[in-house]
Amino acid sequence: MNNVVNLPPEDMPRQWYNALPDLPTPLQPPLDPETKKPVDPAKLAVIFPNSLIEQEMSPERFIDIPEEVLDIYGLWRPTPLVRARNLERAIGSKCKIFYKNESVSPAGSHKPNTSVPQAWYNKAEGVKRLATETGAGQWGTALAFASRMLGIECVVYMVKVSFEQKPYRQIMIRSYGGEIHPSPSDKTNTGRAVLARDPGCKGSLGLAISEAVEDAATREDTKYTLGSVLNHVLLHQSVTGLETLRQLAMIGEKADYVVGCVGGGSNFGGFMLPFLSRKLSGEDVTFVAAEPKACPTLTRGDYRYDYGDMARLTPLLKMHTLGHSFMPPPIHAGGLRYHGDAPILCNLVAEGLVQARAYFQTECFEAARLFMGVEGFLPAPETSHAIKAAIDLASEAKPGSTIVFLYSGHGLLDLGSYDAFLQGGLSNYALPQEDIEAALRDCPRI
Amino acid sequence: MNNVVNLPPEDMPRQWYNALPDLPTPLQPPLDPETKKPVDPAKLAVIFPNSLIEQEMSPERFIDIPEEVLDIYGLWRPTPLVRARNLERAIGSKCKIFYKNESVSPAGSHKPNTSVPQAWYNKAEGVKRLATETGAGQWGTALAFASRMLGIECVVYMVKVSFEQKPYRQIMIRSYGGEIHPSPSDKTNTGRAVLARDPGCKGSLGLAISEAVEDAATREDTKYTLGSVLNHVLLHQSVTGLETLRQLAMIGEKADYVVGCVGGGSNFGGFMLPFLSRKLSGEDVTFVAAEPKACPTLTRGDYRYDYGDMARLTPLLKMHTLGHSFMPPPIHAGGLRYHGDAPILCNLVAEGLVQARAYFQTECFEAARLFMGVEGFLPAPETSHAIKAAIDLASEAKPGSTIVFLYSGHGLLDLGSYDAFLQGGLSNYALPQEDIEAALRDCPRI
Repeated sequence: MNNVVNLPPEDMPRQWYNALPDLPTPLQPPLDPETKKPVDPAKLAVIFPNSLIEQEMSPERFIDIPEEVLDIYGLWRPTPLVRARNLERAIGSKCKIFYKNESVSPAGSHKPNTSVPQAWYNKAEGVKRLATETGAGQWGTALAFASRMLGIECVVYMVKVSFEQKPYRQIMIRSYGGEIHPSPSDKTNTGRAVLARDPGCKGSLGLAISEAVEDAATREDTKYTLGSVLNHVLLHQSVTGLETLRQLAMIGEKADYVVGCVGGGSNFGGFMLPFLSRKLSGEDVTFVAAEPKACPTLTRGDYRYDYGDMARLTPLLKMHTLGHSFMPPPIHAGGLRYHGDAPILCNLVAEGLVQARAYFQTECFEAARLFMGVEGFLPAPETSHAIKAAIDLASEAKPGSTIVFLYSGHGLLDLGSYDAFLQGGLSNYALPQEDIEAALRDCPRI
Repeated sequence: MNNVVNLPPEDMPRQWYNALPDLPTPLQPPLDPETKKPVDPAKLAVIFPNSLIEQEMSPERFIDIPEEVLDIYGLWRPTPLVRARNLERAIGSKCKIFYKNESVSPAGSHKPNTSVPQAWYNKAEGVKRLATETGAGQWGTALAFASRMLGIECVVYMVKVSFEQKPYRQIMIRSYGGEIHPSPSDKTNTGRAVLARDPGCKGSLGLAISEAVEDAATREDTKYTLGSVLNHVLLHQSVTGLETLRQLAMIGEKADYVVGCVGGGSNFGGFMLPFLSRKLSGEDVTFVAAEPKACPTLTRGDYRYDYGDMARLTPLLKMHTLGHSFMPPPIHAGGLRYHGDAPILCNLVAEGLVQARAYFQTECFEAARLFMGVEGFLPAPETSHAIKAAIDLASEAKPGSTIVFLYSGHGLLDLGSYDAFLQGGLSNYALPQEDIEAALRDCPRI
């Protein structure tokens, strides 16, 4: 029985797909945090290279992937599309379930799809060193990998609590030659100020972003990189959806449901956007974003302008948000603990073109364990949300439907979370409406 | 640039290759540890199912792979054959280097190639529960995976020092539903006796074998499984070499060098045996086994009958051995710390058909880090020995030669070892000849 659909390497996409010109309602521009006016690209150039700023607002539908990026992609791409027949059997599904396996990358997730081009464009503009933050560690690993491949330096500010809880992550980043500091660190003014007030501070993603941005803004040789949310990140991630379209065509299948987990929206956005034109031309395809109930940005957040970070350093983005001061409960899917979401994705949710569903973490770990027991592979806690949604859809959808989900990463460096789950130690957080409303009160009125 | 050669799923081998009838010198039989006469198959039936005992001595050149095993193989097989162009470039190689990537299996190594059929044949004979030992944890993970796939129980005795040092391994085994006990345990007479004498005992592989064998021998519903050394294990692993032959044919290549690391010999044996007939028919192909200098079984051991375990419970096997009482230094490639080797492989080394090379662990970690830096993927410490040998061969071989090595597993659960390496904390053990001779004096005179 053939479960795996391998795209021939020569059929790997050579262009990314940019959804900006195809959005039914144009995207609202990012606003300057000081003036509240559309941000001046020149201001972004302090921390981003020009080519990525151009991609961020490009009107071009397709953008060539540089040859050297294609070569590095070739180390693991095209990735397999896999029919999850055992899962179908185990749940008595009358639908076909496929997963696009992005866990096969060197870093173990979809993140290198954008870390490699980001490093490449920075290097092309003479940047010698990249700074970034990482929460759970997936993005830091991916950027350290890409920097190593391209021969530039990389510094990662990792939220201290994760740095301590996930020692394997930081060893992997160092093995790629990356420099890593637990955040708050003594390397930045921001970090030193926090440590002076609270030497035991365990950090937060917002704080780590502030440290990385400060590092990039204060060093001539360094730029900042972000692993999700922004338009150019979704652009680079479109390679997963484009490959999947070709793989489905190879076997004469069409997706009725396109599913992914959402933290900042990069894996799901990159996966579903290449299917968008089909929906806009009237075909019956449903896009389902799966998020945690503990951080229900798309299902319970407000669609408005908000800051990307807690310290209010970033431009204001029009997005679904729980408020930039919202601190999500400590769920194990660290990659899904973000108060906002990619503006492109939020635009589509607001238009009713993408639906969102929220799940408790234990039901997701149960889905992951079911998957592992029949398909063999151990999913990342983030990925388990997509699996849960796919399983639910298989029982709701019209028999014979085809469900495709993005398997965003493996869980081999998250086994501590599985241990907690197996020991029955995981909590389900039902977020009180007051908490969300309180955090939203901090949002700017625009 | 196409680096990856994917064998179409429909071309996956449907038979394993059994080298026994093709060995130029017939294999010497295993001997009963009590009588020192060829062992009676009926005696083996206490701990092994009949079908595997038959395979152990089969005269058939090809043996059908059961359909259900093929289905489970199909979750990750065929595995990719990858041209390591970046590695070639980095070392200025004039040879082509390919690696067969067995790290893509759910358990992360080649081990499921035999754990799945072993579980299947046991289940077919009514066995409800499998017992085994594991050192570094690769085999325990693979057997837990296979048992879960086939719906039978699995108990793993894991050497206590590894159990404590590698918590992720035991969580993964438990996630597959496996039962795991640090050895010495209070579950067996052997374990309890050791604990009574020495409550702080950290265990050894020999002791863990004794516990698993006792568990299987004393329970009606339970059999014992071994992840290496035996003929039927190499038979199952031949799927890797058979696939590689087809993949090389797809791109018009022929292997001049076939390379693998050797602990008990299962990954290298399974990989090179399907190439054997070419060598026997006069073609110029070189087989290179890479082992640690800290456990130099093939390069410095004696070729004679010895026990497979420290407690002298197993049959005597004719093999290269450092003596069953030999305790290798604590190198990080835990899977290569075995005093003996697969009899089939030793037979070929004794015939001069396979050459062996030994390496220090730091030079292997350096090779692994080079590989990771250019090819992206993090190799297991065991696998790094094959990488080191392939790199050396690339500079010695005639320009234009084709080198193929088995990439036996990833190192994602071995990051602690990389940490020690990065911190410069690894020792190289040059084994004094007296130590080897002392251990060999314990061997039976046959």
